[in-house]
Amino acid sequence: MKELWIDLQAKSKTALYEQLYAAIRRNITDGKLSPGEKLPSTRFMAKNLGVSRSTVALAYDQLTAEGYLAPRQGSGYYVCDISELYQLSREHAGTEKQRKGEQENRKEEAASPACEIRFSPYEIDCRKFPYAAWYRVNKELMPREDSELLLSGESKGMEKLRSQISRYLYRARGVECRPEQIIVGAGNEYLLMLLAQILGTGKSVLMEEYTYVQAYATFRNMGCHMLAAHTDSDGICMEDVHMSGADIVYVMPAHQFPLGIVMPLKRRLELLKWAAASGERYIVEDDHDSEFRYKGKPIPALWGNDRAGHVVYLGTFSKSITPSLRISYMVLPERLLERYEKNCGFYACTVSRFGQELLYRFLEEGHFERHLNRMRNHYKQKQETLIALLKRENWVQSVSGDNAGLHVLVEVKTAYSEEELCRRAAGSGVEIHGLAEYCIGNPPKKAYPSVLLGYGNLNEAEMRRGLEILRRLIAGGGTFGK
Amino acid sequence: MKELWIDLQAKSKTALYEQLYAAIRRNITDGKLSPGEKLPSTRFMAKNLGVSRSTVALAYDQLTAEGYLAPRQGSGYYVCDISELYQLSREHAGTEKQRKGEQENRKEEAASPACEIRFSPYEIDCRKFPYAAWYRVNKELMPREDSELLLSGESKGMEKLRSQISRYLYRARGVECRPEQIIVGAGNEYLLMLLAQILGTGKSVLMEEYTYVQAYATFRNMGCHMLAAHTDSDGICMEDVHMSGADIVYVMPAHQFPLGIVMPLKRRLELLKWAAASGERYIVEDDHDSEFRYKGKPIPALWGNDRAGHVVYLGTFSKSITPSLRISYMVLPERLLERYEKNCGFYACTVSRFGQELLYRFLEEGHFERHLNRMRNHYKQKQETLIALLKRENWVQSVSGDNAGLHVLVEVKTAYSEEELCRRAAGSGVEIHGLAEYCIGNPPKKAYPSVLLGYGNLNEAEMRRGLEILRRLIAGGGTFGK
Repeated sequence: MKELWIDLQAKSKTALYEQLYAAIRRNITDGKLSPGEKLPSTRFMAKNLGVSRSTVALAYDQLTAEGYLAPRQGSGYYVCDISELYQLSREHAGTEKQRKGEQENRKEEAASPACEIRFSPYEIDCRKFPYAAWYRVNKELMPREDSELLLSGESKGMEKLRSQISRYLYRARGVECRPEQIIVGAGNEYLLMLLAQILGTGKSVLMEEYTYVQAYATFRNMGCHMLAAHTDSDGICMEDVHMSGADIVYVMPAHQFPLGIVMPLKRRLELLKWAAASGERYIVEDDHDSEFRYKGKPIPALWGNDRAGHVVYLGTFSKSITPSLRISYMVLPERLLERYEKNCGFYACTVSRFGQELLYRFLEEGHFERHLNRMRNHYKQKQETLIALLKRENWVQSVSGDNAGLHVLVEVKTAYSEEELCRRAAGSGVEIHGLAEYCIGNPPKKAYPSVLLGYGNLNEAEMRRGLEILRRLIAGGGTFGK
Repeated sequence: MKELWIDLQAKSKTALYEQLYAAIRRNITDGKLSPGEKLPSTRFMAKNLGVSRSTVALAYDQLTAEGYLAPRQGSGYYVCDISELYQLSREHAGTEKQRKGEQENRKEEAASPACEIRFSPYEIDCRKFPYAAWYRVNKELMPREDSELLLSGESKGMEKLRSQISRYLYRARGVECRPEQIIVGAGNEYLLMLLAQILGTGKSVLMEEYTYVQAYATFRNMGCHMLAAHTDSDGICMEDVHMSGADIVYVMPAHQFPLGIVMPLKRRLELLKWAAASGERYIVEDDHDSEFRYKGKPIPALWGNDRAGHVVYLGTFSKSITPSLRISYMVLPERLLERYEKNCGFYACTVSRFGQELLYRFLEEGHFERHLNRMRNHYKQKQETLIALLKRENWVQSVSGDNAGLHVLVEVKTAYSEEELCRRAAGSGVEIHGLAEYCIGNPPKKAYPSVLLGYGNLNEAEMRRGLEILRRLIAGGGTFGK
């Protein structure tokens, strides 16, 4: 028997067959065993090493399965040719290492300390999360043997959850739909990916020039042709809608992000009329923020005025519960439902069954609407506080978009550019977002730099401190317009 | 004042302003108030109805926001023209109702009773789910005030979760990667949607002629050009790989679904060599089922042999924990990471923060690997039981694909066609899947109808009952080959 470097440790935690497997493998990769060479029989090897034959057989089987050995009928095991493997490693090891280094450098550059005061339009008030109710519902959800929760369930999401959502939509948003029309999914972007697949390739999508850029990027990634429309005080310009030749118009009638415009009925009807003029035109109504309307009761969704079946409604629990929940839903008009079944019905629902069950109970037991009512008042007070504070600031030219949502839009009298202002604010620990971040088109030049001030997760003291920092910063930048 | 049908109920639960809003709205939609008509002043209306002015102002504001009224500076409120809305309703109400009816009929047709005995290749053993550990981890996860769980977190998933996954991959699958290369997402299909976006449009994807059809449909939906390759006993035919001109080859080397082939090292190296020959060729290694290998230790992933960075690795917790968890992950080679950041870095992770934290703790506390080891033995026993039972059946020609996974492939001596056999079995309460269900190409004609028998969620008694039903059914169908 050829001398092999095989040293088995009886007391090791690693099984003997694994040790043997590793040893033979090493002998092959090191070239001590050459391609075509015959290995000792299992009987011989076992006797020689003082182990059982089955131990050797197991090791040989594993090596065979991985392609290091090949058995020949009635003749034994032979070493395979694995030279190509090591050729590949040597050729590319250098480049790979270099690439890794570059990657890590980039990562370090990107890392910057998070701001202490975040006027973020995306954050909710974590201090007011209904921990107790959530905790209780979650605890009840986990009986020791509920195998129901282990099954994949329906592609659109659980029927009982969709029923709850449809009831909520009817009550709160004037959206009348059957649970069958609702698709539950892990976030708006995922649902837009589905929608793009339902609508088919080569579609053109028109969005307002300031918009929700994640939706823009999603459609673009899905191969849609992207178009930007101007906005006036009532929202998307109808002239652009008609001129664009778009197949899909994406709007946020309840509270346009980031401008905060509430689309009046007239414009809504014009949009619906545009869509109804052709069988293949659709309006995507992103109804985010609609839950938090502070003046009067919520404005019904555009969907409610659509009798021709051209509106796709998008809703989310990101702001009404928490963004980290990752549950959104899309309501499809009947004419798209069939295409959903055909093109996308095979996808499993992207929300875990646990998450669906938790949300279902949270809705069903009334926690959701109680939480919403509480938060509506709470955010309203926050908004009033922020606006009162902003009115005292000499650098504030105007405040708008205050009908709804968790942010306002502020025109700033500053000599800094929008970008410079945001960068400097971040440097002083204050996160603010310039309007330009949300721009996808070529809007007319603005008279003032504009920033979004989100207030979802800030208390009054934090607002005061944040505004004070901004005040000093802006004062240090020189006089506006000079 | 023009007479309006306004009847306010002081004792109603509905707020007075809401009642007033609804009443005026009704007057407008009924045509009792015409476009252009001026409404009484808030003062006059308030006095007339015996309510406060602010109640009337609230109602007018709401009607204005919804576009039913338009204020004119210093002059009062005027009724808007909403005629278009009702025109739209009338035109389309008929078609919509008709469509709804059709939809419901289709739904009824599709509904069929679920089978009692499911030889499903997708199901796990729900009876062996680690309920106790899962329950405990979940309970600890929900402290009353952990706002950390409410933040969106990283696009790729939580760093600590990805670290755990990378450690597991190294130990169990020989996959050496940095946590930065791992993208956590809600299921394989979602991750493939991302991958298609990363790779860009117009790619051609080659898959084996029998394959995981959901992946096929996902790539197709994403606009990829789909190609099918023949398979031999070692897996995908290299001749087809070279001839196809494909950009991407999708394989399952650990346990090909549905055929159960384990790809030997030689074929793996040939594939890697093909990929390395061009900068833009990639292999998608779907490593599902790899955890459940019953002969020797698991075979390392193809990824481990790739030094040129051309393999995208796909893993899932669907079988190792439960499909309803909806957590998968994709490991990207360095060269695709940059493109991920650029094209897809803006997507929020599709797995909820709660789900991520739960899985993290389940991995970190060792529950996962303990569960895996237990289940590996458990499923191995199940497989042995099923194969022993199958050996006694006279209608079984052969059993294959038994190296790993949760199903075997059975050639059946029956006069029925594959489709007919599955249909009749379902009619008798037994779910089986014909090989043709997984076919995307034009494979050579088979000698025998073949079915997949999954055993994940069946105990011995169920297997016996299921096989007995199949035996009777096949006997009733006449003799094979006559």
